[in-house]
Formats: sequence, C-alpha cells, structure tokens
Amino acid sequence: MSDKKAIRLHKKLRGKFDIKPKVHIRSKEDLTLLYTPGVAAPCVEINKDVKRVNDYTIKGNTVAILTDGSAVLGLGNIGAAASLPIMEGKAVLMKQFGDVNAFPICLKTQKTDEIVQIAKNIAPVFGGISLEDISAPRCFEIEEKLQNIGIPVMHDDQHATAMVVLAGLINATKVVNKNLKKLKVVINGAGAAGTAIAYLLLEEGIKDILVCDSKGIIYEGRRGAYGYKKKLAKKTNRLKRKGTLASAFKKADVFIGVSVANVVTEKMIKSMNDEPIIFALANPVPEIMPDKAYKAGAAIVATGRSDFPNQVNNVLAFPGFFKGALKHGVTKITSQIKLNAAYAIAKTVKSPTADKILPSIFDKNLAINVSKAIK
Amino acid sequence: MSDKKAIRLHKKLRGKFDIKPKVHIRSKEDLTLLYTPGVAAPCVEINKDVKRVNDYTIKGNTVAILTDGSAVLGLGNIGAAASLPIMEGKAVLMKQFGDVNAFPICLKTQKTDEIVQIAKNIAPVFGGISLEDISAPRCFEIEEKLQNIGIPVMHDDQHATAMVVLAGLINATKVVNKNLKKLKVVINGAGAAGTAIAYLLLEEGIKDILVCDSKGIIYEGRRGAYGYKKKLAKKTNRLKRKGTLASAFKKADVFIGVSVANVVTEKMIKSMNDEPIIFALANPVPEIMPDKAYKAGAAIVATGRSDFPNQVNNVLAFPGFFKGALKHGVTKITSQIKLNAAYAIAKTVKSPTADKILPSIFDKNLAINVSKAIK
Repeated sequence: MSDKKAIRLHKKLRGKFDIKPKVHIRSKEDLTLLYTPGVAAPCVEINKDVKRVNDYTIKGNTVAILTDGSAVLGLGNIGAAASLPIMEGKAVLMKQFGDVNAFPICLKTQKTDEIVQIAKNIAPVFGGISLEDISAPRCFEIEEKLQNIGIPVMHDDQHATAMVVLAGLINATKVVNKNLKKLKVVINGAGAAGTAIAYLLLEEGIKDILVCDSKGIIYEGRRGAYGYKKKLAKKTNRLKRKGTLASAFKKADVFIGVSVANVVTEKMIKSMNDEPIIFALANPVPEIMPDKAYKAGAAIVATGRSDFPNQVNNVLAFPGFFKGALKHGVTKITSQIKLNAAYAIAKTVKSPTADKILPSIFDKNLAINVSKAIK
Repeated sequence: MSDKKAIRLHKKLRGKFDIKPKVHIRSKEDLTLLYTPGVAAPCVEINKDVKRVNDYTIKGNTVAILTDGSAVLGLGNIGAAASLPIMEGKAVLMKQFGDVNAFPICLKTQKTDEIVQIAKNIAPVFGGISLEDISAPRCFEIEEKLQNIGIPVMHDDQHATAMVVLAGLINATKVVNKNLKKLKVVINGAGAAGTAIAYLLLEEGIKDILVCDSKGIIYEGRRGAYGYKKKLAKKTNRLKRKGTLASAFKKADVFIGVSVANVVTEKMIKSMNDEPIIFALANPVPEIMPDKAYKAGAAIVATGRSDFPNQVNNVLAFPGFFKGALKHGVTKITSQIKLNAAYAIAKTVKSPTADKILPSIFDKNLAINVSKAIK
C-alpha cells in the first residue's frame, strides 16, 4: 500500500527538485550582466585567483551526492539509475535542513580508480562531496584517495552514521548514568558503518570494543581478516577475544547492530551488564524488535526506523555537517570535527530520556548546532 | 563600469541558481514516502526496467552542461572553475526559456578520453548532455564518441550556432529574394562553429561553400590540412579554389565570420554579389562593424552582439532544442533534426526584414516552435 503511494508520488513529481534561477533574465541588460558579455568579468577574476570561485558561483554552497549504487540500504547493488530516487531524496534533505544545494551524481562505473578520477575532475563545481551507498571495502579506498582534493569529502554511510550513533550513546549514558569512556561495546557488522563507528568510538576514548562479522568476533590474526578488516582487528579487541556474536554480548554495556536482521535474542541481552543499551539499526527489520529487547531488560533501544522512538538516521548529521563545512571553509574532515558534530547532535536534546536520546530531524536547532561545530 | 556591475551582481548572488525541492518534508510520513523506506519502491521499479528512471526521477527533464573550459568565447582556455559563471548562465537560460533543468559539470581534465569516459559515467542522471566551450578538434572527437550512449549529446558551439545561422540565412534570403540553395557562401573560421555551419549548410543543399582559416581558403590537398580539416576540404570547395579570404569574397552572396575581429574590409564587401549578406559573428568585436558593412553595400548584417539588430546567439536554439529532445525521447541528434530546428527558429519571425531576420530570445513562441520540431 505505502509502496503504491510512494510510486504514485514519484511518478507525479518526476524528480524531487528543480533548478531555480535566483534571478530571471527579463531584458537585454539582464542578459548582458548575467550572460555574455558581462559574465566574462567574474570568469576573468576566477582565472586570476581560483579561490574567488567561491564568491561568484554556486560552488560555495553546493555539494555533490556521489554514488555508484553498489550498496544501497536494504536493496544492495542496484546501480546508478535505480539509486537516483534516493540521491534526490538526500539532495532535498540537504536543502531543507541545511540550506545547502546538493546535486546527485550517480555513476555507471563501479571501478574504484574511475570513481576517484571522476570525483577529482568534477570537483571544480562543488564545495564538497558526500559519498553515498558505495560498498565496502571500496568506500574506504575511494574516500581516502579523495582526502586531499581541496574540498571536504565524506562517506555518509560511514561517518554520518558514526556521528549519530556516538551522539545517541552520549545521551544514553546520561540516562543510565554510566561512564561513556568505560563502556563495553559490541558492534555487529564490519562494513562501512560498523568500521566507522568503531573508529569514532575509539577516538572518543572508548577502549573496550568488539566488532563481529558473520564469522563472529574479529581478532588480530584471524584467518581471512585482511586489508581494512585486519587493521580494524588490530585497533579493537585488545584482549584478542574469540567467539560468536552471542559470546561477545556477555557483560557488554552496549550493542550496536549495523548488519543483519533478527540476529539478537532475548537471551543475549540478558547476558549483558545492567541497563544495557541496544542500538538495533538493521533496516527495515532490526536485529531485535524493541518490545522484545525491552522485555529482555534493555534500558534503551534505538533503531533505524521512524516508527519507533530513538531513530538513528544519517539525516541528523549530514545537512548541518556540510552547511558548517562550507560556511567555515573546511577542506578536510578530521576526527575532532566528527566528535564535535556528535556532541552537537547530542546537546540538541535538552533533557535526554530513554525514549529521547536523539533529536527530531525537524528540530530547527539541530543543523544550526551541528553547523557551528564544524570548523 | 559594466564589468564592475557584473562582478557586483555575481558576488551578491553567489551562484545563479538554487536547488528547489518540489515538495517539502514536513512530517515523518513525508519522510517515509520520499526517503526511506518508501523511496525503495521506485528504486526497485527502475532496477527492474531502467527506462522507468525517466518516470520517477529528474533524469527526464535534466541536462548536463559539460565543459572543460578550454575554448571559452572571447576568453580562450580558462579552465573549469573560471568557466563556471558562464555554465551557470547557460543553466539559467535553459530553465527560463526551455523549462529544462540544467546543471553545470566543469571538468578539471582536458583529456579527450577522460572527458568521454566521465560523460558516459554521469549519463544515468541526465536526459541529455550539452557540450560547451570545448576546443577544436577535441570537441569533434568527444561529441562523436558520445553519439551512442542512449541520450542526446550536442556540442552547443557547433550545432546551436549552425542552426541559428541557417535560420538567419533562411529569412535573409527571403528579404533579399535570393534562392537559399544557390547561395555562394564564404565562412571564415574552421573551428567548432565554422565546421558545423559548413556541414549544416551542405545538408540544407547549399553547394557553393568556401571555408577559410588563417591560411586562406581551405582546399583538398592543402598542406597542413589533416584530420577534420581534410574532411572539411573534401566536402566544401568542390572547384578546389585557392587564395586569400579577400579572394574568396569575390562574387559571394554570403559571408559568415566565426573567427577573428576586424578581418573584413569595405573593399571585400564591395567585391561581393549584389545585396550581400554579412554575418560578422566574432565576439565582442565583429569582423566588420555593421555601419561600415552597410556603407559598403551590405543588404543585411548580423552580429553576435545584443546591441545591434540580428543577434546570432545560441540561446535562440538550445533551450527549445533540449526541451524537445527530452519531451520526444530523442536519443541521437540527426541532421534532419537540426534542419527542422533551423526552420522552426526562422518561422518564429512572421515577417522578416533586414533588421529582423531572427526572433528575440524573449519571444515566447520560440522555444515552443523549436521544441515541436525536435523529434
């Protein structure tokens, strides 16, 4: 039913946004100033000093939403064209909540090197690039190779997710009165989101982190853990614990699921420390449904869904994040910036409760707070 | 003065357009339909049948304005960033006159193969690509290699210019009562515009065409005329005439200049047939100023400037052209389509006179007429 409604709406709209001229060309004089020959003057100025492109053009307030459609949430590798409705949605959210213009660039190629090369070559028009829905491990390599192109490049699925998760944890620990840095955390999923969450929590000073994948706990030296997973194994799980996801739950304070539906049981939650915090973020079906988690003793449950309290959604982060990055001329996203953003999201909730650890995306202070934190 | 005014305006605007959402997301339900999870439904549909991307997304009414900034009118090779104000201007014109969304893609690279590869890879988002201000001969190769990517790709500086020139000639011959197909035509400039004009006039059936470059008349077998110029020499100048630009003028009916300022003298015009037609399109300084041309006996003078009558400007063609191409699902631009467009521009002027061989760009019928002709 709601599928049909969504299809009908998309068919009616035929695209979720329009290009809207800021001025209309009504006379020959308008044409002379905005187009030829007047337009030559700002062109000449930019040619003399390329930094002026931010003063005279869309670049200063425009972001590319760049994807290859290889890892679309819930849909997998659907490619460029099929991912466009989502990227348009991101563009609308970026505008509405961050007042930043965003344009979707959905690429036919899924080759790492080609994507990097294209991103570099389209950079003159954009003040930033938000990478979206690119599968791991390519997303890590692509992002890394784009860190020195002079504009901020951020993989949304990694870092926006990580910032929102950390924001939620900051407020959740206030509610259950635990020390953030001393939390024992279990993450299920070692893809883009799981990896970025683990690193951001480490940056925050949380030391006791176990990351699990389909084969159980990741530890240094585990067979098959190479590349980015090998690095992750080295940075987390300092005691080199081995075992299943269920064994990781024992005496943990926090579970963060960013992988598969229905993998968490009531028994697992019962094996955790007192007042466990459950972030069951698999979408649309979480790792465990909130009612079952609460029945098993969870103190706080967050999901990725809008129909439960505590929705973990990237949109809490990315509009304010790019708004701030563009406003403050940030060219590279550091860990400190991400931590600042997480705290800015967290503080937008004045008095956190078990049902309100994260702000509403409709909270007008949210993007403003996040934007101020990005410098 | 007008430079300062243009700079001030560009600085005030900071970009000539905004992204404007067609719907605002005001409630969780809006978010559910336009973004996750509802947006998955159109994604799935497009994944099943990629043609549906035209029904559900911006693609059906969005064009890329693609440049490498290598041949910007009057400014030369100023590169990607410095060309952005012009491309934004084109986007505004495309929207205002054609109601087509256009987004500038200014590329850092000037390598032919890279540009081709990027154009192919960004094609999923766009219903067409307007190539702009790319230097010859690369523009020919790039356009040719993009003719079979499933969406219309047109180099504006070549074909929009050629269509407007032919439209002007159609009406000019009515005014001076000459037979279009029997005109003796001299073109000065064998770059993007000159070449495309020559070919379109040939397609129209005009057989007597001499094209000149800085070395004089181009003829088959001329030293240094290789590649696209060799091909051009073969198709034009069937009598293999040799000589200077001045010698080409003798007994000609039409001069079309798309190259260098001030190269035409009164004496040259006096050597032409009766009632000569002068298109002095070099910009901002034409090949000969209109007053001098008329003094030498010109019956009709057109320039590229907005401060004289008969302005030959691409904007007469491209908004309606892409409007029609998108509306009628045209995937490849044929000669017939270009001829149809030229006649559509011409007929928009109900009663041509020496001072009115081309419509105003503010003529509301123009884009509609052109659009109808593109199928």
